Amino acid sequence: MATLCRPSVSVPEHVITMEQTLDLARERHPDHPQLPLALRLIENTGVRTRHIVQPIEETLKHPGFEERNRVYVAEAKARVPAVVQRALDDAELLTSDIDVILYVSCTGFMMPSLTAWLINEMDFEATTRQIPIAQLGCAAGGAAINRAHDFCTAYPQANALIVACEFCSLCYQPTDLAIGSLLSNGLFGDGIAAAVVRGRGGEGIALERNGSYLIPKTEEWIMYDVRATGFHFLLDKRVPATMEPLAPALQELAGTHGWDAADLDFYIVHAGGPRILDDLSKFLQVDPHAFRFSRATLTEYGNIASAVVLDALRRLFDEGGAPDRARGLLAGFGPGITAEMALGRWSRA
Amino acid sequence: MATLCRPSVSVPEHVITMEQTLDLARERHPDHPQLPLALRLIENTGVRTRHIVQPIEETLKHPGFEERNRVYVAEAKARVPAVVQRALDDAELLTSDIDVILYVSCTGFMMPSLTAWLINEMDFEATTRQIPIAQLGCAAGGAAINRAHDFCTAYPQANALIVACEFCSLCYQPTDLAIGSLLSNGLFGDGIAAAVVRGRGGEGIALERNGSYLIPKTEEWIMYDVRATGFHFLLDKRVPATMEPLAPALQELAGTHGWDAADLDFYIVHAGGPRILDDLSKFLQVDPHAFRFSRATLTEYGNIASAVVLDALRRLFDEGGAPDRARGLLAGFGPGITAEMALGRWSRA
Repeated sequence: MATLCRPSVSVPEHVITMEQTLDLARERHPDHPQLPLALRLIENTGVRTRHIVQPIEETLKHPGFEERNRVYVAEAKARVPAVVQRALDDAELLTSDIDVILYVSCTGFMMPSLTAWLINEMDFEATTRQIPIAQLGCAAGGAAINRAHDFCTAYPQANALIVACEFCSLCYQPTDLAIGSLLSNGLFGDGIAAAVVRGRGGEGIALERNGSYLIPKTEEWIMYDVRATGFHFLLDKRVPATMEPLAPALQELAGTHGWDAADLDFYIVHAGGPRILDDLSKFLQVDPHAFRFSRATLTEYGNIASAVVLDALRRLFDEGGAPDRARGLLAGFGPGITAEMALGRWSRA
Repeated sequence: MATLCRPSVSVPEHVITMEQTLDLARERHPDHPQLPLALRLIENTGVRTRHIVQPIEETLKHPGFEERNRVYVAEAKARVPAVVQRALDDAELLTSDIDVILYVSCTGFMMPSLTAWLINEMDFEATTRQIPIAQLGCAAGGAAINRAHDFCTAYPQANALIVACEFCSLCYQPTDLAIGSLLSNGLFGDGIAAAVVRGRGGEGIALERNGSYLIPKTEEWIMYDVRATGFHFLLDKRVPATMEPLAPALQELAGTHGWDAADLDFYIVHAGGPRILDDLSKFLQVDPHAFRFSRATLTEYGNIASAVVLDALRRLFDEGGAPDRARGLLAGFGPGITAEMALGRWSRA
């Protein structure tokens, strides 16, 4: 049984508060006709603080895609190994025990992926499989968990390492003035998370089933416009309402497993924004308190893309975990619109 | 048993010959101090023709990363569905039979990946898993086969669709004048390939074992420099000699399986360049004729990146396949330096 062990999470040292974000929006866009709406949307996110890899003055500049990506690479190399090491330590494994590394990140681009550097830098085995995914955005945290689960199902003795490295602040585009961009400027934060899926042993979520769901004809609702200035994040105003079509997919996955999505013991979901959590509570008929882990991630770190689900799970661990064999649901949501969903039971070591 | 079925392959209608390539190099770089060396290296590739998505006059322009990527998206949408449909037909499956799509492509970038569009456009199930990989370069064809194999090992009733879409001509960078770039300008071609891995049934290679190998400390030998002008391909001069350290990895994988890498019935490998094939023949002690499928791909299409292994396999099918239970090896090679290797037996329907 593949067990998703305690994630380790690190957020950068530079902090920006909601008040600073609102002040910046007012300063930079005093004549924007939709400024009041943007301010209201940002306030509604409930994001109190975000952590970013550079001081805010640097973040607001756009020194070009090349320099931005150079910062991405340098910061990833400086910050990822410690997070990975802690995840390995928490899972009581060595680098030599890892068979596959799933590296998910949509906020910078490298070929080869950071996986090659990590294998060399941290002395993983030369035979370690590399699965780098850059194009599933915020859904990639769930996808990484699910593909790790699949791998350990195929090879029950194997162990998988998941790394989610997201520096959303490096995708800030000063010239993007649509309301979705202004909102995004107040929503996304930076963070790195790592977790091990152990094929045998370990404490955490014993993964039992996973599934994907793509809402038909929504592939343009969350997307990158790829330009010389880098990735421009486009957010359709219909995205916050997507939990209505996704809740039935979660219910169906649970139903197929003989479970009721309304009646599980824990919920770890991507906190894309506050409406996601409110609507999941409504459409799944689950007490809002069940989403407290995801809500805390959103409030303290903002939307840290593929790292959200791992940070929310880390908070469940910090709360002491769940009773043995407690049933839970994990889900990442992102471009596609895609949901990557998983069901599992808490497993004490 | 997961069976890799007949790949379907399509190359674009615009053709450039070796002579045209050499003439262009002479015209455009008359004063380049290493022109004679570049011409000799290009001649040595043995690449007689390449197929590209735009006429050569368009290919030689650089209208900017954004326009280039726009062409990538438009050409992928125009060309991929027919290739996919043929692969499904050859595997005697419908879109509704596919559980996971592995889309590998390193020559353009989209988020979401083309997988989301394909699911909508071709009516794949909304529950189809998406595994888009952009960062394994030429090794991604092998990686896609191996991850499909893993998926079908985890879920023996499942079927996987592999798509490799590479428009290398869209990564031509007129200002890159290093010898590795001049050589690449004469080596890479465009192509699309698709193949199904059937969990049950099907004719082709019944996949038995797979493995990865990364040559230590070579992560900068093949890499993209990510710039405002797009991806700049960097090729270290040590790359052609990498079969010497990779041959033992192939031998070890075969040995673990109780096979001898020198004594298999067929070989389907990435034809990065002629030296790759010559050296594999030498270090594995295998008759050069064994690499005729890969050699033909290189000669007729050039290095079409992740699509090479699928095109080489298509040529084995065109030759009538292999005797039932004939043993063979597949391998993709690419940035990392990474080898993605597989062993399997020919399986008649």
